[in-house]
Amino acid sequence: MLNVITLEEALALVEREFVPAAVAERTPLMKALGRTLAEDVTASEFVPDFDRSTVDGYALRARDTFGCSDAIPAILMQQAEVRMGEGADFVLQAGCCAAVPTGGAVPRGADSVAMLEYTEDYGDGTVGIARPVAPGENMIFRGDDVRPGKLLLPKGHTLRPQDVGALAALGVADISVRIPLRMGIISTGDELVSPEDRPGPGQIRDVNSVLVASQLTSFGVEPVSYGIVPDDEERLRETAAQALRECDGVILSGGSSVGVKDASGRVISSFGPLLFHGLAMKPGKPTLLGKCGNKPIVGLPGHPVAAFFVTQLLVLPLMARLGGKAAGPRWVSARLTENVSANHGRALYCGCRLCREGDELWAEPIRTKSGLITALTTADGYFSVERDREGLLQGSRVKVYCLGEEEHGV
Amino acid sequence: MLNVITLEEALALVEREFVPAAVAERTPLMKALGRTLAEDVTASEFVPDFDRSTVDGYALRARDTFGCSDAIPAILMQQAEVRMGEGADFVLQAGCCAAVPTGGAVPRGADSVAMLEYTEDYGDGTVGIARPVAPGENMIFRGDDVRPGKLLLPKGHTLRPQDVGALAALGVADISVRIPLRMGIISTGDELVSPEDRPGPGQIRDVNSVLVASQLTSFGVEPVSYGIVPDDEERLRETAAQALRECDGVILSGGSSVGVKDASGRVISSFGPLLFHGLAMKPGKPTLLGKCGNKPIVGLPGHPVAAFFVTQLLVLPLMARLGGKAAGPRWVSARLTENVSANHGRALYCGCRLCREGDELWAEPIRTKSGLITALTTADGYFSVERDREGLLQGSRVKVYCLGEEEHGV
Repeated sequence: MLNVITLEEALALVEREFVPAAVAERTPLMKALGRTLAEDVTASEFVPDFDRSTVDGYALRARDTFGCSDAIPAILMQQAEVRMGEGADFVLQAGCCAAVPTGGAVPRGADSVAMLEYTEDYGDGTVGIARPVAPGENMIFRGDDVRPGKLLLPKGHTLRPQDVGALAALGVADISVRIPLRMGIISTGDELVSPEDRPGPGQIRDVNSVLVASQLTSFGVEPVSYGIVPDDEERLRETAAQALRECDGVILSGGSSVGVKDASGRVISSFGPLLFHGLAMKPGKPTLLGKCGNKPIVGLPGHPVAAFFVTQLLVLPLMARLGGKAAGPRWVSARLTENVSANHGRALYCGCRLCREGDELWAEPIRTKSGLITALTTADGYFSVERDREGLLQGSRVKVYCLGEEEHGV
Repeated sequence: MLNVITLEEALALVEREFVPAAVAERTPLMKALGRTLAEDVTASEFVPDFDRSTVDGYALRARDTFGCSDAIPAILMQQAEVRMGEGADFVLQAGCCAAVPTGGAVPRGADSVAMLEYTEDYGDGTVGIARPVAPGENMIFRGDDVRPGKLLLPKGHTLRPQDVGALAALGVADISVRIPLRMGIISTGDELVSPEDRPGPGQIRDVNSVLVASQLTSFGVEPVSYGIVPDDEERLRETAAQALRECDGVILSGGSSVGVKDASGRVISSFGPLLFHGLAMKPGKPTLLGKCGNKPIVGLPGHPVAAFFVTQLLVLPLMARLGGKAAGPRWVSARLTENVSANHGRALYCGCRLCREGDELWAEPIRTKSGLITALTTADGYFSVERDREGLLQGSRVKVYCLGEEEHGV
């Protein structure tokens, strides 16, 4: 009945069926942190733009210091003093030196800088240099950092603090970035009440829409909530149509089991092709994906843990595709603290804690029944058991995909 | 001349000299992502609040199915049908079953649920069960997830999506979080021009204030810019005084070398004790830390790469202390692709790329002269060589502290 495919097949479908949709806009550099580049950034100037000293000292010609020592310092004429924030528009003569502060310009003619600590100002216009310096020592040359035309950051890259710093150094005042995607989130289910309400008999709080909205926000996507819709196919269709008009795609949360009230599949199909109905993974089987033009319509499983994993493993890669964002999850290699059995011929995903013993990193599986979202608050990451495996033995190596940034060292 | 201490000593000073300063406020759960908890969150209810089915099927007593098979199904009376979002306020009788959807309430008297796939509705009020079920099978019991009084998340924890989801499940509508710290940033230096301006001879763009502001923002701290102040001690003091009145602390960027125009140390000292002047690390030596009451005044080195590392290694831990935030950098273990020599008896910090070969993770040092900030755009992380080491040999294991989230798997 279900058209069930593997996660790998689903991710290949995402690449094939969708194209980048996020529109580009220019933004000032100060607001660009965390944004995704819509085009390559190449350098248009030299950085630094002039030869600079990396120490306080004297700019000079290295060969004038060869053979000098504490006992027999090289004696150089102080030709000039370079001040911070001013150029050095003179040529240093042989046998001369020029005082230069850290970061100051090194004059033409000089090829190195002697550190202040190894010099002595005799007060009569001459300076003693007590240690020889090598050509290039204690200075940075024009263009050492960047030359015009160099690819600095590629399209699709999401800007980190150090990237913003590098762009500032290049004088990039504004850049072309993708406007964040907007995804509609619709919760469906007669049993759902809003998180702030107290559930009546047989009711549960709508955890998934808050959970998924948070996952999207963390990924730079703007969630747009359309509230809780009862299991009424027509109302669900109307709300989905509105969300599709207003957003870059829609996520239906809950209502996708094969239960009697399941209407999500029919609603998704009414807007365009249903790409698959069912993922061969646990948790996460009752997942649907359809499309309306280039806008995806995702039917998430109702169990929060399943919704969490499907969002992490399918929805975020889909957002990366639509958002033109180069992204892959971070993982570390760890060994299992105990045996883990596979399940039902589906890939199994399991949260785990990480702990280190000496050089070895260990992954301790978190045992949770589907639906127990609070167990994930103790997870440092998760690993998978492939669908064709019987299970994994204690001590086996697994790839642990990390969750969150604030964890202790792994 | 300089009072130089190690980074470890500096971090111990931070813990000793400062106390958490960030004020608490209540925030709705939907806005709590990325915020730091100001108090422990403990559960006040059972989750779930009723026994629930994890499948579509029939709630029943497990012992009524023992010994049944395809050939000889157990025949049970269908006593009721539980609907989604409604309670199950009846007691299931022996020899009976009740239809129940995924997530639906399991009535008292029942101890398990048979999956729909292994049942047959005979249409005469009876249902055949073709496989025995074990007590507890296919259901979650009241409080399986959380019981009242359980510590869910500790004070100081920064909320990730899965944490927000768990709080929603608990009906937590608003929580007590720390108001983000505000840090003033003052750039000093006659050679500095704003990033959008073209530097004249001997001038450079003010990279550090944008860089450090981005690092603070990524950590949840609000940067407040006080612009570029020339190397004029009195103006610097006035600007710092204003920033100290308006913010939780001040960062002076640039102007902290032993050069002739260094006024930062005197300015910092004018507000209170100078805790240290100089860190035994490279890059990053000309770092200062002072305090005015519980407000830190940091003097950062002028070189962007040095400013980056000192912010990462000293300022962010200081922000964690002031912000009441439990945080430590994430690290992975990797082996060096080449020899790295130590320098000047100071701890050396070096950016690196990470690449994986089989089970082994390798760290390739990024060679950069101090000041070459663009090299950090290619860094996946950084490692250190302790100050008492001569250097590290190719193949040695290092702890690599990770930078950014969007990297490929490590």
